[in-house]
Amino acid sequence: MRWMVSLVVAVTALTGVIVSTISVSGLADDEAAPIFGIKIPAGYRDWKLISVAHEAGDLNDLRAVLGNDIAIAAYRDGKLPFPDGAIIARLAWDYVPSEENNKVFGRAQSFVAGARTNVQFMVKDSTKYASTGGWGFAQFKDGKPADEALLKTCFPCHVPIKARDYVFTRYAPTP
Amino acid sequence: MRWMVSLVVAVTALTGVIVSTISVSGLADDEAAPIFGIKIPAGYRDWKLISVAHEAGDLNDLRAVLGNDIAIAAYRDGKLPFPDGAIIARLAWDYVPSEENNKVFGRAQSFVAGARTNVQFMVKDSTKYASTGGWGFAQFKDGKPADEALLKTCFPCHVPIKARDYVFTRYAPTP
Repeated sequence: MRWMVSLVVAVTALTGVIVSTISVSGLADDEAAPIFGIKIPAGYRDWKLISVAHEAGDLNDLRAVLGNDIAIAAYRDGKLPFPDGAIIARLAWDYVPSEENNKVFGRAQSFVAGARTNVQFMVKDSTKYASTGGWGFAQFKDGKPADEALLKTCFPCHVPIKARDYVFTRYAPTP
Repeated sequence: MRWMVSLVVAVTALTGVIVSTISVSGLADDEAAPIFGIKIPAGYRDWKLISVAHEAGDLNDLRAVLGNDIAIAAYRDGKLPFPDGAIIARLAWDYVPSEENNKVFGRAQSFVAGARTNVQFMVKDSTKYASTGGWGFAQFKDGKPADEALLKTCFPCHVPIKARDYVFTRYAPTP
């Protein structure tokens, strides 16, 4: 019987591996970001909207900031610091003019999300990430994590906004 | 017994009225938009993200386009025309520079969502809205619907994009 149990365990483990490498985003998520060990959270593309932004300059992107349910609840309740388990996702796309929109408006005024650039995550775990304000940081491009050198720059940039638990983005009011 | 039944009916109706005037957005939604008779759909602030955009010029806003589950499924499946029941929401906010972000970036490059401007909805009902491509249009500012004159301008502007079932916004790729 022991070999049968082993087989079941092996098949179950293999199935688990297959499932875990395909996130609902359609990207492989088996590779963890360095330093913080964060993988792409399943389903983040469908998380609730926190706010939107445009970064001009070298980045020149349009971005949406989404949150998992723990993060959204904390935002709505004005709860700081964010509780463990909160994850904030920043999705970014190239900032491109929309010719078809401009035709309708009769002027060049419309900019839309073009090709995807990358996705970043802030993951709250006050124990695991105690040395970086309780937040772990990650960035992925085409499912591949950014390197250690880049991730080391995350926390120092967030230090100025310590008063809001190191989170820059405010919750956009409901129109 | 008849008066008791009437009382129950009256209380139930009253409760219904109270509940229907408080949407999860926190805004009153008892007032329907003219022409198409659309009310603010409950919970739209938490719908899934379709894409983001910036309209410069006189509008000068940042916007998020969200969809209810029927709309999102149609986008993902590339299904056109959108099925009845699909609703697309366009939320907009003033396009404002972020001083606190710019300080960190060391340059003036960051624009974020400021005060809310308004929210628009496209509601698919191929029977009810047959004369406008199967779509009803609505706009609300602070919970109040835009007037008939404004709503009459919606469909003509969407006609050029008939090939995509009158919907301009494309689904942003998952970063």
